[in-house]
Amino acid sequence: MSRFSQPPHPDFEAINASLAFDRRLWPYDVAQSRAHAGMLASIGAIGAEDRDALLGALDTVESELREGSFAFAPGDEDIHTAVERRVTEIAGRSGGMLHTARSRNDQVATDVALYVRDAAAAARLALGALIEVVIARAESHVDWPMPGYTHLQRAQPVYLGHHLLAYAWMFLRDRARFAAVIDACGALPLGAGALAGVNYATDRERVAGELGFSSVSPNSIDAVSNRDFALDYLAAAATAATHLSRLGAELVLWSSDEFGFCELADAWTSGSSIMPQKKNPDAAELLRAKAPRVVAHLAALHGVMHGLPLTYNKDMQEDKEHLFDTADTLALSLAAARGMLESAAFNRERMAAAAADEMIAAVDIADLLVGSGVPFREAHGTVAGLVRIAVAQGRTLSQLSDMELVEHAPGLDPQALRELLRGSGWLESKVSQGGTALVRVREQLDAVRTALAQG
Amino acid sequence: MSRFSQPPHPDFEAINASLAFDRRLWPYDVAQSRAHAGMLASIGAIGAEDRDALLGALDTVESELREGSFAFAPGDEDIHTAVERRVTEIAGRSGGMLHTARSRNDQVATDVALYVRDAAAAARLALGALIEVVIARAESHVDWPMPGYTHLQRAQPVYLGHHLLAYAWMFLRDRARFAAVIDACGALPLGAGALAGVNYATDRERVAGELGFSSVSPNSIDAVSNRDFALDYLAAAATAATHLSRLGAELVLWSSDEFGFCELADAWTSGSSIMPQKKNPDAAELLRAKAPRVVAHLAALHGVMHGLPLTYNKDMQEDKEHLFDTADTLALSLAAARGMLESAAFNRERMAAAAADEMIAAVDIADLLVGSGVPFREAHGTVAGLVRIAVAQGRTLSQLSDMELVEHAPGLDPQALRELLRGSGWLESKVSQGGTALVRVREQLDAVRTALAQG
Amino acid sequence: MSRFSQPPHPDFEAINASLAFDRRLWPYDVAQSRAHAGMLASIGAIGAEDRDALLGALDTVESELREGSFAFAPGDEDIHTAVERRVTEIAGRSGGMLHTARSRNDQVATDVALYVRDAAAAARLALGALIEVVIARAESHVDWPMPGYTHLQRAQPVYLGHHLLAYAWMFLRDRARFAAVIDACGALPLGAGALAGVNYATDRERVAGELGFSSVSPNSIDAVSNRDFALDYLAAAATAATHLSRLGAELVLWSSDEFGFCELADAWTSGSSIMPQKKNPDAAELLRAKAPRVVAHLAALHGVMHGLPLTYNKDMQEDKEHLFDTADTLALSLAAARGMLESAAFNRERMAAAAADEMIAAVDIADLLVGSGVPFREAHGTVAGLVRIAVAQGRTLSQLSDMELVEHAPGLDPQALRELLRGSGWLESKVSQGGTALVRVREQLDAVRTALAQG
Amino acid sequence: MSRFSQPPHPDFEAINASLAFDRRLWPYDVAQSRAHAGMLASIGAIGAEDRDALLGALDTVESELREGSFAFAPGDEDIHTAVERRVTEIAGRSGGMLHTARSRNDQVATDVALYVRDAAAAARLALGALIEVVIARAESHVDWPMPGYTHLQRAQPVYLGHHLLAYAWMFLRDRARFAAVIDACGALPLGAGALAGVNYATDRERVAGELGFSSVSPNSIDAVSNRDFALDYLAAAATAATHLSRLGAELVLWSSDEFGFCELADAWTSGSSIMPQKKNPDAAELLRAKAPRVVAHLAALHGVMHGLPLTYNKDMQEDKEHLFDTADTLALSLAAARGMLESAAFNRERMAAAAADEMIAAVDIADLLVGSGVPFREAHGTVAGLVRIAVAQGRTLSQLSDMELVEHAPGLDPQALRELLRGSGWLESKVSQGGTALVRVREQLDAVRTALAQG
Repeated sequence: MSRFSQPPHPDFEAINASLAFDRRLWPYDVAQSRAHAGMLASIGAIGAEDRDALLGALDTVESELREGSFAFAPGDEDIHTAVERRVTEIAGRSGGMLHTARSRNDQVATDVALYVRDAAAAARLALGALIEVVIARAESHVDWPMPGYTHLQRAQPVYLGHHLLAYAWMFLRDRARFAAVIDACGALPLGAGALAGVNYATDRERVAGELGFSSVSPNSIDAVSNRDFALDYLAAAATAATHLSRLGAELVLWSSDEFGFCELADAWTSGSSIMPQKKNPDAAELLRAKAPRVVAHLAALHGVMHGLPLTYNKDMQEDKEHLFDTADTLALSLAAARGMLESAAFNRERMAAAAADEMIAAVDIADLLVGSGVPFREAHGTVAGLVRIAVAQGRTLSQLSDMELVEHAPGLDPQALRELLRGSGWLESKVSQGGTALVRVREQLDAVRTALAQG
Repeated sequence: MSRFSQPPHPDFEAINASLAFDRRLWPYDVAQSRAHAGMLASIGAIGAEDRDALLGALDTVESELREGSFAFAPGDEDIHTAVERRVTEIAGRSGGMLHTARSRNDQVATDVALYVRDAAAAARLALGALIEVVIARAESHVDWPMPGYTHLQRAQPVYLGHHLLAYAWMFLRDRARFAAVIDACGALPLGAGALAGVNYATDRERVAGELGFSSVSPNSIDAVSNRDFALDYLAAAATAATHLSRLGAELVLWSSDEFGFCELADAWTSGSSIMPQKKNPDAAELLRAKAPRVVAHLAALHGVMHGLPLTYNKDMQEDKEHLFDTADTLALSLAAARGMLESAAFNRERMAAAAADEMIAAVDIADLLVGSGVPFREAHGTVAGLVRIAVAQGRTLSQLSDMELVEHAPGLDPQALRELLRGSGWLESKVSQGGTALVRVREQLDAVRTALAQG
Repeated sequence: MSRFSQPPHPDFEAINASLAFDRRLWPYDVAQSRAHAGMLASIGAIGAEDRDALLGALDTVESELREGSFAFAPGDEDIHTAVERRVTEIAGRSGGMLHTARSRNDQVATDVALYVRDAAAAARLALGALIEVVIARAESHVDWPMPGYTHLQRAQPVYLGHHLLAYAWMFLRDRARFAAVIDACGALPLGAGALAGVNYATDRERVAGELGFSSVSPNSIDAVSNRDFALDYLAAAATAATHLSRLGAELVLWSSDEFGFCELADAWTSGSSIMPQKKNPDAAELLRAKAPRVVAHLAALHGVMHGLPLTYNKDMQEDKEHLFDTADTLALSLAAARGMLESAAFNRERMAAAAADEMIAAVDIADLLVGSGVPFREAHGTVAGLVRIAVAQGRTLSQLSDMELVEHAPGLDPQALRELLRGSGWLESKVSQGGTALVRVREQLDAVRTALAQG
Repeated sequence: MSRFSQPPHPDFEAINASLAFDRRLWPYDVAQSRAHAGMLASIGAIGAEDRDALLGALDTVESELREGSFAFAPGDEDIHTAVERRVTEIAGRSGGMLHTARSRNDQVATDVALYVRDAAAAARLALGALIEVVIARAESHVDWPMPGYTHLQRAQPVYLGHHLLAYAWMFLRDRARFAAVIDACGALPLGAGALAGVNYATDRERVAGELGFSSVSPNSIDAVSNRDFALDYLAAAATAATHLSRLGAELVLWSSDEFGFCELADAWTSGSSIMPQKKNPDAAELLRAKAPRVVAHLAALHGVMHGLPLTYNKDMQEDKEHLFDTADTLALSLAAARGMLESAAFNRERMAAAAADEMIAAVDIADLLVGSGVPFREAHGTVAGLVRIAVAQGRTLSQLSDMELVEHAPGLDPQALRELLRGSGWLESKVSQGGTALVRVREQLDAVRTALAQG
């Protein structure tokens, strides 16, 4: 018997009901109910018979949900009521005991924490697989020269392997962030009751152990008010999505006719409804486009929590859809990044030609002067002058005559300059730790592999 | 025959496919195809027979989609290809003519513009219905005193009718904003082709007229690059949602035991899973919680468009889900606001008691002094002194003796003070335009009705 | 005498004080004080002598603030108290009368509305100047072919003039949006008092008229609770900034060595600290980077207003910095866009060469077939086959022999194909309204001019 | 000599210059220059004399900047050029050597990493101080009953100490998050050069050690492209600000006349310009209002990085203002939270009276029934019925007669019920780990202290 005398308004049910999305939580709801029932029996709050009835019913519920034969009822407001309703149908009076020493508040928080933990673990796996592809592609293109860009202007040549490995480090940081998320999910909310704790000396450690939590939340009010772990997950996902958007943007750019650095596989592109020649990098564009979506989910959950008095407020029901869509989006994006990268064909000639642009040797020419004792700023100024002359006359640097060089760049050995412009010395001279010299890139390949194995 | 030799990767299909959400656009896709076919025939680009075959097929497609019997095929990437594929199944070779002088780029932009126009119109209707409820409740509570708050501190008494009407003005501005959105959807994109226009002197005015557009977009590149109308819609929705969040927050507050100003109907509240005495204002909380979600959709679409080179990029496919969820959220929120407000029971006594707090007459006491020639700042200081004495001694202002009044507030007529504190004069003296005096509130009721009828 | 017995904590003053930023409001604060004093005298609430003393003092305050000689005092919490404090120093006892029938709540709302109105008007002016530059550059490059892109893939050739005009239409919509903002600022808040109206039959219409408002806000509670006009302004600015980010992104792209479509003027680029050959499009990059900042301001103000009970809450003090930084950012961005565009040198040859890519004629070839009665879908398939053959063999379409053409594209007249590929027919055939055919672009130039003159 | 022939446009300088804000980075710029000069000498890239000249000049620059006597020059685009310019004025030709083997790209990244590290450390300190206040107030109010709320409805009584400690756990998590930020700042970017590494076998470990970095960034491209640590900091700050907004919201609520649970100190509140009785919780409101601002900074930086091709792009200059304002806002908010909490006076009677509301014992009554073997769901239903009767008749539960109890709640011992309603048993029965029973709260106090000491 409810204290209410009116049935819910259909519009109320529509805005209030969460079953349409929170049914995804069923595996966690079943798992925690199982652990809870076992614990209740272990402290004598329910009898062994009731426990067995509950566990049996939960087994049935699990099979039904897994197989899709679970029949949701009109009154099932959310997955928690649905599961308990069905358990009671099966277990009879024992079913009514499942909610002893538990509230929907700590129950929901527990389900969500379990979900987030799994989502973070899945992200780690997918990132690992992506990093492996990055490593493989970096290795097979370890010595392909291409221009490095700043401000989208050709700046200095690098090896494609070096460029690709930059992403490996980003994704390794993402992995570490998701590891921290898993830690953030480590304190069991269950046992906090509605907000104040429960009238039983429950064995929360037992439940925690069974469900894989490393501790129990130490304050019942915080336990039901807290969604930090969800924010942590969304923040980690937002940064990962932002990284992926940079990769997507580069693949779009490199696939353009103007760059021509790579061609995405047919399997990862689409045609045009009216332009048969088109090969559109749709997946790369979507990689780019998904970051604002994930960032918006993060901002939205912050907005939901903003100014909320403790403890549980219905507002917090809004956590779920942001989490679910983020997990789906991230999974799809990581898979797409991996697939595209794995199958992309890079164009060695186009990249090499662009990297051979003499202008991008300017800093190295300046360093020639520095080597002969000229302060860097002076050397920089001298070379800028040479560049200006060459650009103004539409000539390359190596087309300047010795006389011109001697006149405009006193102290610069024309011979040394010509040698420098001829070889791949520009790349191989970047011998500093983390630099693009081949020996350094090979070092990096080892370092990335180690980091992946450890993290 | 495609230029591609590889089939799409399943992960590519998963990230690329939009059918799962863009199928909502079908009524617009069918309508524009109908108008397009008619126009093509009118300029002689296709024959009358082909047109009739197309129109017939579109009728069938429409019925199938309406009735749910439309069979989507595995290759249907989006609603546009699905409709055209089915049209071709039905109309045979004529079906292949539907895409003459049209591209998916202008087609999508047109569908989305039509959708947004409808969504804005629906929001206007729902806002109108909500405003009517606000007016009705304001009228029936026109003279119920309650405290007005600033900083959540009781500040000055107002009538509940006056307070409620504040929302009517907010919602009227929302309605005006959605009217502007409808205007922003007024230029027909169709006919822009992929981006450059088409190889036919199409009759775009005819199509515009048939589909209810007031003009045709004047630049084909802008036509397919532009999503301003979607941003306008999301911005209008965000402001409306923010308004609703304020209403929700007030209903939550007023429903608390501490305020006790109103009781929401059973039909708009829920109970607790473990606390049988609870009557939770879930719908009001959700009203509050939905604003960050809608604002996030707005920010996300800005993010998608950020830095996008012209013209169409696949990123723009991300416009749809943000729009659809916003429209659904807003519809639900407006219905919930209306339903809750309509059925809420206000507590006259609790509000009156709070409004009778003498302290909130302070500004009126200061004005008594101003009336006798004291500059406002001085008067303010004098009354602040009286308040301090009363607060320090735990007395009300009317408990101060004449002697004390004369001593601490020279120039203040004790008699006038006592009179002021006795009556409802505090409210009725707010005679300025827009003020809370009853005559002004009644004026407002008329003004709101007029504004609603006109806007 | 205050009711408080403790002085404010320094950290309280630090978080509470707004003078550091709201001093920008001084011209509005002085103007409204002037209008308010005049009105008070007109209804007899203060004497003519007091009014004159107030107006005289306000003149002095205005000069001091304009000339930078105004001395702020330690106790000046905000610009409103600073102005009133100084007025009282100058006008003596009359100064204390300025705040009669006014509260800081309606005063602030009025200042902010005046500020937003001016900021919107300034944005309109700057947009107008930018549009004029767009028109001029479009006119002088009206017939320069370049590739139009979808998915950053070359799609169809267009004229640069046509492409540039796409931005004119975006900016015209922005102008219209700011016009709506000005309207949204049209209702005078002043006279609402703290929240309930005031104890005087003030003449709000008089004040409104003097300050340029078109009406008075009809509900005193809404008047002090409302910041819709600020949200409207931020939303308009966000869309404008997003447009500018697209322009910035294109300028960055076009300035790359790979595209080489334009060279920004030295005056709008910067060099590198170590790479003397670099010419970096910094301003274009910043144009791109500023959109998220403005969008964030919009989202933040929504966040501030989220769930706020009526009426005024201190939270609303957060409106100002978001507004001010947006106005500054937008002004700078619009000036930069104009300056860069005005001085950019386009490279006719590079663009023409890219536009001559035969592949982008594919849709036109398909339309040749359509002209001979082949349904568009079939024609599309046939041409896709030709493209595939050419791509596979590394040949252009015109390098295919007649025999090959006849074999793979039965029904396609080789002669017509060769003719089509030779001329600029691809562009000139886009004769549909809004298309890129020259006659259409010239039409557009007229239309843009008319729209600018009218809007 | 520059390669440029035109001076920068004033509007370009305005949008490009960062000196107005990045001058805050000077301590880091000086420190890294010092370490860099030392390292250059150690590897023989510059002579000992030049090094000494540089170090001497850097000392002077540091003093000038610290004392405010540093004269910025018109051409100083940013703090880096200003410092180097001044070093060169002082050190002459040696000054030109400072930029050897360094680029502005790795230089900026290093400064920002150092800044973020310090900001995170400062946040940790301030959080620690705040947690200590929370502990102190929790301890002194450890056994003051108050209602715990869900949905802002009174739900179950708790002790104020328990409620306050919920915040301690939130802030401890924030501290941990900032510790992770410090780790994220641990890889030295310096030595990456513009993007490719440098032409010297620099000793990056030495520089890292001197500046307190734990490692060197392993990929030069990533080193200059990466702003993850800034995102991590903003994310940690956003969550902390969201926590603070909840505290602010509760203080506002509790300070209302209706709740009356606490009175903020005069030093942390302000009066009204026209309502002398007002005591406004401005600082608490601002605490609430600052969260959207910080979240917006986070979202904005994500927006800036969105879709950015590697490596450095000018867009990234936008990182600084978001960081700086966040650090300032957070520092102010943490100080305000601490000050307010430290000086707030709680009202024992008002809280106790609210906590004595019999209705909130309902779950405990249900547990009485559960104790006698009734399944929880049945017990819940029975008590709901009692509540309904009491509410309908305007009576409390203890006003129901034994007969009524027996009739409507068979199985419930009236005696036990009356006993339960009499004492503070409701609180003390919450004996589960983390519950509100006093012994548990005391446990928590110890646990918080330990966690603070360790973290």
